[in-house]
Amino acid sequence: MAPEHLSGDGAAINDFLDKFDTFLIDCDGVLWSGEHVFDGVPETIKLLRSKGKRTVFVTNNSTKSREEYVKKLESKGISSRVDDIFGSSYSAAIYIGRIMNLPTPKNKVFVIGEKGIETELQSENVPFIGGTDPAFRRDITDADFAGLADGSLLDPDVGVVLAGLDFHINYLKLATAYQYIVRGAKFLATNVDSTLPMNHAFFPGAGSIGIPLVNMTRQQPLALGKPSQAMMDAVEGKYHLDRSRTCMVGDRLDTDIRFGIEGKLGATLAVLTGVNKKEDWEHSSAEVVPAYYVDKLSDLLGPAE
Amino acid sequence: MAPEHLSGDGAAINDFLDKFDTFLIDCDGVLWSGEHVFDGVPETIKLLRSKGKRTVFVTNNSTKSREEYVKKLESKGISSRVDDIFGSSYSAAIYIGRIMNLPTPKNKVFVIGEKGIETELQSENVPFIGGTDPAFRRDITDADFAGLADGSLLDPDVGVVLAGLDFHINYLKLATAYQYIVRGAKFLATNVDSTLPMNHAFFPGAGSIGIPLVNMTRQQPLALGKPSQAMMDAVEGKYHLDRSRTCMVGDRLDTDIRFGIEGKLGATLAVLTGVNKKEDWEHSSAEVVPAYYVDKLSDLLGPAE
Repeated sequence: MAPEHLSGDGAAINDFLDKFDTFLIDCDGVLWSGEHVFDGVPETIKLLRSKGKRTVFVTNNSTKSREEYVKKLESKGISSRVDDIFGSSYSAAIYIGRIMNLPTPKNKVFVIGEKGIETELQSENVPFIGGTDPAFRRDITDADFAGLADGSLLDPDVGVVLAGLDFHINYLKLATAYQYIVRGAKFLATNVDSTLPMNHAFFPGAGSIGIPLVNMTRQQPLALGKPSQAMMDAVEGKYHLDRSRTCMVGDRLDTDIRFGIEGKLGATLAVLTGVNKKEDWEHSSAEVVPAYYVDKLSDLLGPAE
Repeated sequence: MAPEHLSGDGAAINDFLDKFDTFLIDCDGVLWSGEHVFDGVPETIKLLRSKGKRTVFVTNNSTKSREEYVKKLESKGISSRVDDIFGSSYSAAIYIGRIMNLPTPKNKVFVIGEKGIETELQSENVPFIGGTDPAFRRDITDADFAGLADGSLLDPDVGVVLAGLDFHINYLKLATAYQYIVRGAKFLATNVDSTLPMNHAFFPGAGSIGIPLVNMTRQQPLALGKPSQAMMDAVEGKYHLDRSRTCMVGDRLDTDIRFGIEGKLGATLAVLTGVNKKEDWEHSSAEVVPAYYVDKLSDLLGPAE
């Protein structure tokens, strides 16, 4: 079924808004592009809240913690609390801490990633090594090769390898993570986006940081970001939401819109200010088609009187 | 057809040796494991040469230049000349310099890899950037993100990205290589081995260093190492060998033995001192089966009288 275009149609927008209590909203490409917030976005979030809607910001970006997201949202004129934000790092921390629930002390995580992951693991009291530790931000040595091969450099308590976006990825981290996985650690990823959109170009995403481990082990990680339904289950568990009265809002068909459709939400709303355009679903072989779309999020404010 | 087992059968060994003028010999797992040379190997090479056979050492290891291989062979008691060695770095240098033959100055190579690649590119007068340059061995900065996105940090003369084993891989190198490929540079790899055997364990191989670029661009690189027939063509061109009187000797079915079979050589000889064992071809779905095998290379010396 062709998606309904809401932009400029006040009656259709009101009908749409009446159907949902909760909006799960992607950030990059919807609220902003990099540091540039789109016009009218803060007012749109205010409008939704004034109508009693819950707004939850759901992002695959693993490098920032929820606290840091609150700060970024505030700086763009969108007030929020930590509990309004659900990132892939937090999703991973909840999965490891509450769902896997490994027996202590075998629940330690070897992290490939930045501070955001560490902060969220700490918030769930999950022990970890690696991450931003300077001991892993260096060249591999002959002693490392020997100690990784015979296991003497490995922590016997590591039961999970969690791979996210890491701007400090190196050979030592990859070699270490590989050894943990072949020795039985569970392989998880915050998300598997192949690219990271920044400065109107693409850079290596979390999926491209972890893919050497896939290539070496022939194992796919369990991904905790969109469109993984492990993330949807965690979102539902936290907010006790009624899926039929929840709408997913995003710019990417393969992550955001797929996440909402596979999660059997009431609907999905595509926004054309990011990665995907109408042409991407307006062909016969399109697999992922949103229920609604707007040209930009602030079109939900309705047409000017 | 089941491979013929030569070990211990003097008459079969003599028949075998009489069929070939040239032996292409893999190094790791055949001559040595890491720094440990197998017993009788130097004597076996001497025997082959005393019978007038040409011995060419064919390796996918891209980190060492041919000069460095000569030194390693000498240190293990095997005298050789630079021209006895054919590595994947040299193969890539020949392919770029002589076969691609890009117009100057658009023939510059962005290198992901170590000194061995640089030495071989220099030997073929191919200009390059990246590689071991300290300017690329550092963390990515905001200025890098901006300059890579708008192209101002890119060298307009780069026409090739060559990815090999790089113990100093980092986010900056991957982000830079990606930008060159999406702007039209040809994507090559010295080889695509997923793992590097060292210290009786596995570490990330050249294929696992370049795979983020595959994941981001959805392009496969042209690989210049075994089993790529681009390497076989280069070997044939250099040594003017008669393929029907040439035998490939190696321990890996998926690289060495496949290389010889697809290259339509006279035969392949598997050696059981490395990665693969008899069980790997002794099942009905085995795709790559050698013509001959020996338990160890020095079995070619024949049984003791």
